[in-house]
Amino acid sequence: MDRTHTVGFIGLGNMGQPMARNLLSAGFRLKIYNRTASKARELAGLGAIEVPGPADALDPDGIVITMVSDDAALNMVVEGTDGLYNSLGPGAIHLSMSTISPATSRRLAEHHQQLGAMYVACPVLGRPEAAVAKRLWMCLSGPAEAKQQVRPLLEAMGQGTCDFGEDPGAGNVAKLASNFLILSAIEALAEAFTFVRKNGLDRATLADFLTQTIFNCPIYQNYSRLLLAEDYEKVGFKLALAMKDLNLVRDAAESAQVPLPMAAILHERLLSSLARGRGDLDMVAMALAVSEEAGVQPAGRTD
Amino acid sequence: MDRTHTVGFIGLGNMGQPMARNLLSAGFRLKIYNRTASKARELAGLGAIEVPGPADALDPDGIVITMVSDDAALNMVVEGTDGLYNSLGPGAIHLSMSTISPATSRRLAEHHQQLGAMYVACPVLGRPEAAVAKRLWMCLSGPAEAKQQVRPLLEAMGQGTCDFGEDPGAGNVAKLASNFLILSAIEALAEAFTFVRKNGLDRATLADFLTQTIFNCPIYQNYSRLLLAEDYEKVGFKLALAMKDLNLVRDAAESAQVPLPMAAILHERLLSSLARGRGDLDMVAMALAVSEEAGVQPAGRTD
Amino acid sequence: MDRTHTVGFIGLGNMGQPMARNLLSAGFRLKIYNRTASKARELAGLGAIEVPGPADALDPDGIVITMVSDDAALNMVVEGTDGLYNSLGPGAIHLSMSTISPATSRRLAEHHQQLGAMYVACPVLGRPEAAVAKRLWMCLSGPAEAKQQVRPLLEAMGQGTCDFGEDPGAGNVAKLASNFLILSAIEALAEAFTFVRKNGLDRATLADFLTQTIFNCPIYQNYSRLLLAEDYEKVGFKLALAMKDLNLVRDAAESAQVPLPMAAILHERLLSSLARGRGDLDMVAMALAVSEEAGVQPAGRTD
Amino acid sequence: MDRTHTVGFIGLGNMGQPMARNLLSAGFRLKIYNRTASKARELAGLGAIEVPGPADALDPDGIVITMVSDDAALNMVVEGTDGLYNSLGPGAIHLSMSTISPATSRRLAEHHQQLGAMYVACPVLGRPEAAVAKRLWMCLSGPAEAKQQVRPLLEAMGQGTCDFGEDPGAGNVAKLASNFLILSAIEALAEAFTFVRKNGLDRATLADFLTQTIFNCPIYQNYSRLLLAEDYEKVGFKLALAMKDLNLVRDAAESAQVPLPMAAILHERLLSSLARGRGDLDMVAMALAVSEEAGVQPAGRTD
Repeated sequence: MDRTHTVGFIGLGNMGQPMARNLLSAGFRLKIYNRTASKARELAGLGAIEVPGPADALDPDGIVITMVSDDAALNMVVEGTDGLYNSLGPGAIHLSMSTISPATSRRLAEHHQQLGAMYVACPVLGRPEAAVAKRLWMCLSGPAEAKQQVRPLLEAMGQGTCDFGEDPGAGNVAKLASNFLILSAIEALAEAFTFVRKNGLDRATLADFLTQTIFNCPIYQNYSRLLLAEDYEKVGFKLALAMKDLNLVRDAAESAQVPLPMAAILHERLLSSLARGRGDLDMVAMALAVSEEAGVQPAGRTD
Repeated sequence: MDRTHTVGFIGLGNMGQPMARNLLSAGFRLKIYNRTASKARELAGLGAIEVPGPADALDPDGIVITMVSDDAALNMVVEGTDGLYNSLGPGAIHLSMSTISPATSRRLAEHHQQLGAMYVACPVLGRPEAAVAKRLWMCLSGPAEAKQQVRPLLEAMGQGTCDFGEDPGAGNVAKLASNFLILSAIEALAEAFTFVRKNGLDRATLADFLTQTIFNCPIYQNYSRLLLAEDYEKVGFKLALAMKDLNLVRDAAESAQVPLPMAAILHERLLSSLARGRGDLDMVAMALAVSEEAGVQPAGRTD
Repeated sequence: MDRTHTVGFIGLGNMGQPMARNLLSAGFRLKIYNRTASKARELAGLGAIEVPGPADALDPDGIVITMVSDDAALNMVVEGTDGLYNSLGPGAIHLSMSTISPATSRRLAEHHQQLGAMYVACPVLGRPEAAVAKRLWMCLSGPAEAKQQVRPLLEAMGQGTCDFGEDPGAGNVAKLASNFLILSAIEALAEAFTFVRKNGLDRATLADFLTQTIFNCPIYQNYSRLLLAEDYEKVGFKLALAMKDLNLVRDAAESAQVPLPMAAILHERLLSSLARGRGDLDMVAMALAVSEEAGVQPAGRTD
Repeated sequence: MDRTHTVGFIGLGNMGQPMARNLLSAGFRLKIYNRTASKARELAGLGAIEVPGPADALDPDGIVITMVSDDAALNMVVEGTDGLYNSLGPGAIHLSMSTISPATSRRLAEHHQQLGAMYVACPVLGRPEAAVAKRLWMCLSGPAEAKQQVRPLLEAMGQGTCDFGEDPGAGNVAKLASNFLILSAIEALAEAFTFVRKNGLDRATLADFLTQTIFNCPIYQNYSRLLLAEDYEKVGFKLALAMKDLNLVRDAAESAQVPLPMAAILHERLLSSLARGRGDLDMVAMALAVSEEAGVQPAGRTD
């Protein structure tokens, strides 16, 4: 890809904004669009060109990146009145990085193909701070040629990419599987911490021990820290969004007819948290219900 | 502790044997006992002294290590006719390394104390190959003075120790919490692999990706490998023993009144595996039921 | 309501057909419509008037009954090109008897009201044989005036009606709650039967005892009989449809933020049954998985 | 059996007392024993003979009834220092009516047989008010001859008996299966009531409807009433005892290798209730946690 080429970038939320900034830093020229225009200001100051609608972000044979909140938002961006389908032409590439269902990726890919364009799925693993630090991990899938062309863009946004093949939904499946494993680890840690706490042990001692030995990996290290901090008001990723992601997992599991008992546990846990008004807290606030079911009132709990 | 001092070692199974061998290599003198005497032969060839009963392994003010299969076996070793209570005297230390309930540790510690002796809990994390390689992790608890004295022994058997305080049951609680987290991770991985498989992805690609990035720790690396190998006949740790360990977790959780929904899932999973005659397979054979519930017949399955 | 008035009836499946027949027997005149016209033949022979589309079944200020398979089918009947919205006028009543979501009832009711028409929800409890025998139970809700007018129709089709108030979705909620309780009872019975069977007891003895004493009600009596018969090929209600109903329950529970752990169990059970290719068997075939997880191979099982 | 014969009765709690009274009313002569002697006073006033220990309640070839709180209490009554084994001789019959494990029944039956005595299991279904009203249902098993001899006694205490065969544990298995079904029904009702409540329906309307139609049986009628009353301080059967009974179910299920997912749900529910200090409330207080998980604060809740 020629770096002088201009790339479209749609969706400038907590994740999209730092990703777009990293592309600008790497020398890419960007046409940017966000539903709420104010979010585009800062990037415009760094040289990005604001455009009035999704369709305007894409040169007919260019590349456009979407990083929006859910399937409905993506459908609007692509199929809406001023959506990508107004400008998507032969040779164009749509690099779809949002966390959405594999079904949506497969459906869009098929329609793109009819227009001669290519759809590449590449959802990311990592919270906003990882996006800032260019430390995202990426789950890529789609046509080989298109994947080849978007490589320099991915390298400017993350620390590594895994190729899950040609199926446009595969990258999304891998992302959903990862999210499921992360949520399962959080629930297991929350249960284990409550178990040792009611047995009189210091949770931090256990956390230090395990995350330096058999569980010395980012997920267990980060979430142990967050769980012990019990600072649910400091929101990295909203609990309500974790429910959205889990429902994507469960829908994909239902389509493929795969019972996931642990996802069922997670669903009850998150739904109960929403019912108690915790949707806007950080997702680790799901641990509150683990404590409460054991009769433990967490320190500093305000509800 | 004087290294010329003789230490008793009771229980020479898959774990006890390599642990005792490492003590001999480190220069300790051992008096060894095993219910099935044949297992003691090899160590005798390396200089260990075979004794006819548990009580004979312990000098009245000495140190004795127990590494037996369960609570019942330990009770027999301690309270049986030729058990440790025949020789346990003031100043003696019982270093109890088996995976047993915190309740048993607490009960024995109290009785030991009445005799002037000290009880130290120190169950270990690691499979037999880790014991051979001196790579065990250890969960220590008990009286400070006794913990200090057994340090050189622990250093000769493992790669690190975490001190969970004075409560004689604390080391056991930490070990059980670790086992619970390991089993939860295996179940979550098995569900995730079945999920991506039925969605047409290659499981190994996902496993490689995750265990090099956000889950790059021994538990996820080892169990991903074992799950993908689907070689359940090669037994590192029997499924029936995993059930025994899980029941220790559940009993301790019930005593402390801590609901553990994930442990409930694990229990159903393992019980179903036992019901299908898989108790003698490796514990990762619990994944067979995950596949079966999704209508997937694993390659090479023979039942 | 004047019995000489003509009533529309849309949806002549296993349930709709006997319900319409009972209306004819009671002296009502019917205009009937079914997507697959062949199903209307028999009723035409009994005096019903076949019409070419849903809109034709309804006089502008008349009453029309819908008894279709799901939300999508009802939306098509109401909002489709030749749908009810072409003829629904002031004073008209739509008596909606399908098992659908409360959300769909509420949405349609609002739109009907804008047209001056009234929406009455009245889903039914009972299998096709109950419909034939006029033994359906009915969950009614909607505007008082409309409920009054449809009374004679309901009396011609069932043995009793419960009024759940004005909320157009209330009847659906009550129906879904009933379905949830029925499925829970089936799962509990299947587990109990497997429990006593593996303990060497005769299941029929337990079933006879319980259904003559503390559980002497139709649900426990009928489903005990069906579970013990193990004749899953004789289909009263397809397992795939039970899953559809359960998903209505779960969707409504998620909207209202109500965790239902038992519904989660039922979902895993039915999804596993679908994954094993049992969607076209009777819903009691969900018991097969209960047996299999306990290592019991049911007599006569063919897969 | 000669009604002039004297029968022993051991265990005069909430259940045993009215059962013994009904035997006296029917003309039986009783020798009674209770650990707490005060409870025997009232019956002594009605002609029963107080004896100092369990062994004294039994003529060597007579009949003795036990109705105690759990396995441990029964073991004490039978095997304790002044226990039944001091007087149990050839021809004697032990009618064991407590809710205990099948394993205990089988073990005692074997030992009784060695003494020439017979063991008959006959646990009962019904709360104390049913015992008073002679409306208990009974789950009988044991040797045919002994069952024949105890018939007149059973007829004096209950309204019906079901014979589960010769296996001395079978009656207990049937009783445990019944308890499991009752608890499952309560949990399902509690979830359904919360579901309709949060959807704006009146729970009592639903309860009236269902318990007059498809669920018109004592369990659904009684527990709907109790659940809606929300009067957990009026204790018919303590929540802590429901946990005891459920654990008997789960132990028997584990021995027979039968996964019971619904029992797992019930266990988490009851354990959470105990953790919140509700063990002394009526068992229907398990519904509090169902409400709380849905964010509903029950009226009049004080904790």
